[in-house]
Amino acid sequence: MSPRFDTITFLSDYGTGDEFVGVVKSVIRSIAPTVAVVDLTHEVPAYDVRAGSLTLGRAAQYLCPGVVLAVVDPGVGSERRAIGVEVGGGQSYLVGPDNGLLASAVAMSGGATAAVELSNRAYQLAAAGPTFAGRDIFAPAAAHLCLGVPLVDLGRPVDPLSLLPGLLPLPREEDGALVAEVLWVDRYGNCQLNVDPEEVARFGSRIQLRWNDDVRTAQRAETYQGIAAGQVGLVVDSYGMLSVCLGKRPAADELAMPVGTEVALAIPADDSSMVSAPVTLTTRSTSTP
Amino acid sequence: MSPRFDTITFLSDYGTGDEFVGVVKSVIRSIAPTVAVVDLTHEVPAYDVRAGSLTLGRAAQYLCPGVVLAVVDPGVGSERRAIGVEVGGGQSYLVGPDNGLLASAVAMSGGATAAVELSNRAYQLAAAGPTFAGRDIFAPAAAHLCLGVPLVDLGRPVDPLSLLPGLLPLPREEDGALVAEVLWVDRYGNCQLNVDPEEVARFGSRIQLRWNDDVRTAQRAETYQGIAAGQVGLVVDSYGMLSVCLGKRPAADELAMPVGTEVALAIPADDSSMVSAPVTLTTRSTSTP
Amino acid sequence: MSPRFDTITFLSDYGTGDEFVGVVKSVIRSIAPTVAVVDLTHEVPAYDVRAGSLTLGRAAQYLCPGVVLAVVDPGVGSERRAIGVEVGGGQSYLVGPDNGLLASAVAMSGGATAAVELSNRAYQLAAAGPTFAGRDIFAPAAAHLCLGVPLVDLGRPVDPLSLLPGLLPLPREEDGALVAEVLWVDRYGNCQLNVDPEEVARFGSRIQLRWNDDVRTAQRAETYQGIAAGQVGLVVDSYGMLSVCLGKRPAADELAMPVGTEVALAIPADDSSMVSAPVTLTTRSTSTP
Repeated sequence: MSPRFDTITFLSDYGTGDEFVGVVKSVIRSIAPTVAVVDLTHEVPAYDVRAGSLTLGRAAQYLCPGVVLAVVDPGVGSERRAIGVEVGGGQSYLVGPDNGLLASAVAMSGGATAAVELSNRAYQLAAAGPTFAGRDIFAPAAAHLCLGVPLVDLGRPVDPLSLLPGLLPLPREEDGALVAEVLWVDRYGNCQLNVDPEEVARFGSRIQLRWNDDVRTAQRAETYQGIAAGQVGLVVDSYGMLSVCLGKRPAADELAMPVGTEVALAIPADDSSMVSAPVTLTTRSTSTP
Repeated sequence: MSPRFDTITFLSDYGTGDEFVGVVKSVIRSIAPTVAVVDLTHEVPAYDVRAGSLTLGRAAQYLCPGVVLAVVDPGVGSERRAIGVEVGGGQSYLVGPDNGLLASAVAMSGGATAAVELSNRAYQLAAAGPTFAGRDIFAPAAAHLCLGVPLVDLGRPVDPLSLLPGLLPLPREEDGALVAEVLWVDRYGNCQLNVDPEEVARFGSRIQLRWNDDVRTAQRAETYQGIAAGQVGLVVDSYGMLSVCLGKRPAADELAMPVGTEVALAIPADDSSMVSAPVTLTTRSTSTP
Repeated sequence: MSPRFDTITFLSDYGTGDEFVGVVKSVIRSIAPTVAVVDLTHEVPAYDVRAGSLTLGRAAQYLCPGVVLAVVDPGVGSERRAIGVEVGGGQSYLVGPDNGLLASAVAMSGGATAAVELSNRAYQLAAAGPTFAGRDIFAPAAAHLCLGVPLVDLGRPVDPLSLLPGLLPLPREEDGALVAEVLWVDRYGNCQLNVDPEEVARFGSRIQLRWNDDVRTAQRAETYQGIAAGQVGLVVDSYGMLSVCLGKRPAADELAMPVGTEVALAIPADDSSMVSAPVTLTTRSTSTP
């Protein structure tokens, strides 16, 4: 008998230094031997539900049909629910804690069409302790969903509207500026903002960035290559969002712009010497064209 | 012809920054194309045989039937033997250096029922140098065992009793205290002790911990969630062992309790003000309930 | 219909902290569901084309027949070409940017027998931005090559002789010494030189090493085990190249010998006290035999 799905996409904050990821895969393989696991990443910062949710949301449109297994679970063992979610009327399933982690991927997939709390112990491992739900609850649920076990067999139905939503910050208008936030710093130090490029079309090709005590003028560019050395650039990144970058250097480090930084985007003053800025800023602006 | 096994579980101290893991998998796939490799971890600290052995022992009960390939091998190229071990009369096999690395997993699987030294060069790659036994000796052995090659074809039989044992420290009684040791610090900074929860049942729900120059009173808790902020907790971890934790903060860092730390567990003094402790400790105890 | 190849070997500088590697694998699996991906490494230092090329070259002879997908691509979105290369008249294919990254692996495989620029958008994903060629261009090309799509269908043929070559430094003779370079520092801190052991046979079993302001006498040894504590050793590594090591300690760190260091090898002065060296070096040489 061919299984319903042959792919589980797996994201967690387990890291790869311990055996957690391998044990979860062994449990899956013991239950569903022909299912392949695609690792999205296991280096979500420990307990960082928002970062995990954003990662899942970015990847969602590229995933194979199948089951998404996602575990960033600071509330493991507490009253937070373990859930299985159906999207697209059974086109795919997501399994994880009900803490907002799955929310953006569920939304990207058109919303939940059904959900259960994973309460049926017949589809769980007997646990040595209450703290490794990935191994004992989530992995068996994902594997059984691949095999074709109906979602409702895994536990009590819950109202999809009762699932914890993800909280994605929206940019806001303030004194003619668009106040955005750094959602994600990627491997190369580029800072993705929660800004659709269309929202800044009116600002033109040079945009003033203000964050913490810094002010810089950024140049819009098509590609990272189009940014001169020492220049701050604004590029539409590979997910279609606006991203602050520094040519091939890590913008997040060099500009001190980590995840969560609030960045105001605005039309730059016509003459950079007219920017009312403290001495350190004037000094820094010598490197902007 | 269907192979004997379709899974190799792979642990090493190779890291993932070099191509070592990928090359080993390529060698396996060239010999046994339908066998899947499940990575347990490759971030065992370099040369740390004990850490690798403990990792393997923790995971053992969750692994698929098949071959375990484990390489933490500070003695590569020397007189240490390369071995293949049969457990359960052929239910699974383990391949690696004879330095104690495999010992805990072998023990967890009921002990070795046969063993060979991997001396048959017909089942090895011609090596450019004597230092990459994972690629040249162990990977081919694991792949051939999956294909059904009899263990005895891989080399000289050796007495299973001659294999180097793992050395697992046992806790000891001392002046009414149980002197334990930190076996493992996990990704989240929790410190697993070599203590079965039953051994400390007599101490009650509050247990004094003494290590190096520190004294703290820990609260037994069911889950990490059950530990208040700033509180030291003792939780039964996901492998059934007693673990020192600090809510959602990394206990190992904040308590200075790395792997190998000796920790004495005892009944706390009735009145914490009566603990003969230096000032800094008294200060710290204000955060314990 | 069985695919032409069932293996893609994947190397990149993506790291594993983001979802990039997982998204590329999802794209491959969506196009070619039965193809397995073997990760070589994704921790090539960001933008380091030379390091990626050397890694690929070391691994090349051990890879399964199939497609190599390699992405270290500082020029993504610019004029650099995206290419597909055939080696061995179709025995294997390589896909990646035309920046020298593929050169050493192509050379190890006997040279290119055909090449195309990946210009046919029918075999690419519609991109949200111009910066993730791994996902949008290279992964689909690799997957379609596995499925049996002819190379020439993926884009314009290009002259294999026009592909950017890799630049591998050769050691040079200078005043009786062989001046080499550290090509690679492995996980264990061993420093691979661009030196074939035969080139230093004339120097005997003890070889003087000079780099930056340091001078040490190294002992040739068969294995890492054969090097005494505190001793600098020269071992033929697992790829057949000469490697500087320090027993089981990280030579690169302790000797300050990172990738790119120029190291002169020569016959040592007969009496180490006669080495004209500053005081610090004399002190250090007390640990050499």
